[in-house]
Amino acid sequence: MSHFWINEKKVFYEDEGSGKPIVLLNGIMMSTRSWAPFVDTFKANNRLIRVDFFDQGQTDKLLGATYTHQIQVDLLKSLFDHLKLEQASIVGISYGGEIAIQFAIQHKSKVDRLVLFNTAAYTNPWLKDIGRAWMAAGKTRDGEAYYNTAIPVIYSPLFYETNQDWMQNRRKVLVPVFSNALFLDQMERLTQSSESYDVRNTISTIEAETLIVSAEEDYLTPVDNQSYVAKAIKNSHWVKIPGAGHASMYEKPLLFSTLCLGFINAKDTKYTI
Amino acid sequence: MSHFWINEKKVFYEDEGSGKPIVLLNGIMMSTRSWAPFVDTFKANNRLIRVDFFDQGQTDKLLGATYTHQIQVDLLKSLFDHLKLEQASIVGISYGGEIAIQFAIQHKSKVDRLVLFNTAAYTNPWLKDIGRAWMAAGKTRDGEAYYNTAIPVIYSPLFYETNQDWMQNRRKVLVPVFSNALFLDQMERLTQSSESYDVRNTISTIEAETLIVSAEEDYLTPVDNQSYVAKAIKNSHWVKIPGAGHASMYEKPLLFSTLCLGFINAKDTKYTI
Amino acid sequence: MSHFWINEKKVFYEDEGSGKPIVLLNGIMMSTRSWAPFVDTFKANNRLIRVDFFDQGQTDKLLGATYTHQIQVDLLKSLFDHLKLEQASIVGISYGGEIAIQFAIQHKSKVDRLVLFNTAAYTNPWLKDIGRAWMAAGKTRDGEAYYNTAIPVIYSPLFYETNQDWMQNRRKVLVPVFSNALFLDQMERLTQSSESYDVRNTISTIEAETLIVSAEEDYLTPVDNQSYVAKAIKNSHWVKIPGAGHASMYEKPLLFSTLCLGFINAKDTKYTI
Amino acid sequence: MSHFWINEKKVFYEDEGSGKPIVLLNGIMMSTRSWAPFVDTFKANNRLIRVDFFDQGQTDKLLGATYTHQIQVDLLKSLFDHLKLEQASIVGISYGGEIAIQFAIQHKSKVDRLVLFNTAAYTNPWLKDIGRAWMAAGKTRDGEAYYNTAIPVIYSPLFYETNQDWMQNRRKVLVPVFSNALFLDQMERLTQSSESYDVRNTISTIEAETLIVSAEEDYLTPVDNQSYVAKAIKNSHWVKIPGAGHASMYEKPLLFSTLCLGFINAKDTKYTI
Repeated sequence: MSHFWINEKKVFYEDEGSGKPIVLLNGIMMSTRSWAPFVDTFKANNRLIRVDFFDQGQTDKLLGATYTHQIQVDLLKSLFDHLKLEQASIVGISYGGEIAIQFAIQHKSKVDRLVLFNTAAYTNPWLKDIGRAWMAAGKTRDGEAYYNTAIPVIYSPLFYETNQDWMQNRRKVLVPVFSNALFLDQMERLTQSSESYDVRNTISTIEAETLIVSAEEDYLTPVDNQSYVAKAIKNSHWVKIPGAGHASMYEKPLLFSTLCLGFINAKDTKYTI
Repeated sequence: MSHFWINEKKVFYEDEGSGKPIVLLNGIMMSTRSWAPFVDTFKANNRLIRVDFFDQGQTDKLLGATYTHQIQVDLLKSLFDHLKLEQASIVGISYGGEIAIQFAIQHKSKVDRLVLFNTAAYTNPWLKDIGRAWMAAGKTRDGEAYYNTAIPVIYSPLFYETNQDWMQNRRKVLVPVFSNALFLDQMERLTQSSESYDVRNTISTIEAETLIVSAEEDYLTPVDNQSYVAKAIKNSHWVKIPGAGHASMYEKPLLFSTLCLGFINAKDTKYTI
Repeated sequence: MSHFWINEKKVFYEDEGSGKPIVLLNGIMMSTRSWAPFVDTFKANNRLIRVDFFDQGQTDKLLGATYTHQIQVDLLKSLFDHLKLEQASIVGISYGGEIAIQFAIQHKSKVDRLVLFNTAAYTNPWLKDIGRAWMAAGKTRDGEAYYNTAIPVIYSPLFYETNQDWMQNRRKVLVPVFSNALFLDQMERLTQSSESYDVRNTISTIEAETLIVSAEEDYLTPVDNQSYVAKAIKNSHWVKIPGAGHASMYEKPLLFSTLCLGFINAKDTKYTI
Repeated sequence: MSHFWINEKKVFYEDEGSGKPIVLLNGIMMSTRSWAPFVDTFKANNRLIRVDFFDQGQTDKLLGATYTHQIQVDLLKSLFDHLKLEQASIVGISYGGEIAIQFAIQHKSKVDRLVLFNTAAYTNPWLKDIGRAWMAAGKTRDGEAYYNTAIPVIYSPLFYETNQDWMQNRRKVLVPVFSNALFLDQMERLTQSSESYDVRNTISTIEAETLIVSAEEDYLTPVDNQSYVAKAIKNSHWVKIPGAGHASMYEKPLLFSTLCLGFINAKDTKYTI
């Protein structure tokens, strides 16, 4: 458990293991703790760095603030500086993938390899309105309503149905959190910070070798969106996970490890076939 | 504009044109009026019958009632009786497709050909919770919240984005409707009537020649659900519409006409190739 | 059974039924007779015109000649002239779809609606080499070899497996044909006539309302090729048939009728939703 | 360069690097040499063992023999015995994947993790006839004919088109090989050895953690076939590679390394999410 400060705001991170460094970036509703199931596997051969963005987990809240993704991109840059990280591979999912893309555009030399799970190149009007539904559900302070609005859509119908006990437990854990005004306000600020996200003009400047992972039942950043990212990034490699939804790392955890570690640790990226 | 009565409840229907009869069944948020753009084309060579289910359009509300789909299946049977329809082809989308399936199971001799757009065989736990999100949004009486919760998800992201003027107009028209307590209570009853829907044990008894139409960007009754229906119905024929969402008839109107009329009016269904 | 002459070559065609005219164009190995299973259904409400291209069926062979698709496009124009057809809808599959596209580019006013099954916009190097494998198999005059080279690839593996009796019968019928030098030379000329096919520069000028039908298990003109055609033609409408191969009209005959007749006979093509 | 003997037949293998052992099994037309581009990456952290099956590469030919896959499964068992390998992970593509499946069924304790690229559970009638087309082309001793019959179909059309120089070079290298009677006879025996392949009754007994990798443009063992394998093996994990064909390791080499090494080297296979 470590931290550093940005303008009197505490930023929480975890830095474990050794080897090629991997920075793992959270989805919007996640925190460093969400990755607990993966830590052992990731730190077996790598240095694993996790961080809570502003308004996530143990990093400070930005009460009353309005901000864009840039504040998180800068937080990430501060983390690299604080750790004196010359270069690292970055894995991001969804919100975290979007921050990763922007970091890779702005700080090219800092990024070794890039792994993007369930990540889009911009917040389209459709997703913007879905975000607004989440924010409206948050305003009610009704944890059940927020859960039903924001959670089913991030899982595939099949996973949701075949893991009903697990889902029931998620509900039990999350409804109190989703009834908490402080948390809901964090979620609102994070959601709002994504409204203006659009890297379509700059994404093609990314130079890092990039792995794009799409889940076929992702109904927030559908395959079609990923196809755009895969085409826009020149050194990109694209795989699809059948039968998984937006929270793909929970639905297919071994594939998450396989793809991240396999891609980042592969000795060569270019092959003369 | 015609009507008949079931237990002192008025049922509204439209009966136009002549030729092979087609009964067109509404999705959950629709009414007979929603099909206006298609009427000319459908009645050009066919008799077109539309009907509002209980709690839809101009058919009476069931204030304070709790019911299942069966009440609508029975309404449909009463319509056939009222019109002395020996047999008709039935087209249903989503909620309407589910009623059509149940009618085809219960009244085999009444159904000529069956066309199912965006229709599932049961309400899975995932969809059930999405329905609960809609109901919770309805309780707020906040038309914008209801719109953002229920509308984006029924369109493909691409349609939503490339038809922003049209979508803005929908919003203008629908937000007042979605702020109306009577309407929201109707929607709640209709949504609840779907919670117990499950025909997996009986769907294979359908004998009607059936066309299944899936939209590839349908995020409420995804392609995988349709695959189940296509396999379960023995005389089934399956097509997919790329790039369309759940409200496929609005996104691809000419394909809607093409598929319904082509399938129902084709002289032969069996071919000795 | 009718015919007309082009430069002392007899061109065979069939002209049946009445109503909106439909011209049905053969795939490379087909002839007017191949459509026999569909004639009753098509002529029920339409005038159905079929024609054998040069080196097909009962139209004269072009012994020793080398030609491109243009000769068939011109044959089609002569047919329109001979029949004094002001305008007709055209349905083509594969080779026939390619001729249809070129006719629609060159004779815009003659084409009402266009239906393209399993049709590409150009013969890519991959397909060119597959064509060369067919030609090499033809040179052996070994009917079994030609059958195994050219036939499996035009069906989906599933259809091939679940219709083994039918396939065995096809083999029995086709192996003698595929052992016939005259037929194999016709096939060689037809195959060669496709090598230079490429409408990528002009396809976007097509104005006809167009239906693109792709089969998901089409391994000669895969879905990706159809996607190109669907994007290139402005008034296009695209559907996919799951589980069908290149000879989609034989695998899914009712869908073939449904799509052709539904699209061509739909009163309106534009809908104000 | 090492070898051992089975019944006076020399079996050639390569055994390099150290770490968790990986046995890499060739596709039908491949040999140990075909993996040269991957050796450095695979042996960076693993022991890499390659082997030529009978009638492949530097392993002895079985002139005049008729055999089934079992002879290769036994060869693989002999290799494990020769190397005193207690257990290893196995990667197989196509033919090699089929041998890997049968080995995993027959020698459960020997298999750690299993990675199957482009591998089916049985030779269906469709693939059987395609194999016969290859054999017929082989009989002509015409290298160009064999190339055009067997090569395009193993690449995606897009790869074939965008790598024309590379493909032209393949042609230059392969046509002489494909004109060689000894090689063509080997190919015929290998092709014939696959005709009776069918593990549908036993595949579900596989216990090894298994990664299934399908290529979306694989036209020999299409995605649908892989779906069967993914469902039949209980501890299976499935990914798809968009835009790649049957020879997926050449079209997407970095994904090949990523998936094999990531899956085999991941510390944990089970995650408590």
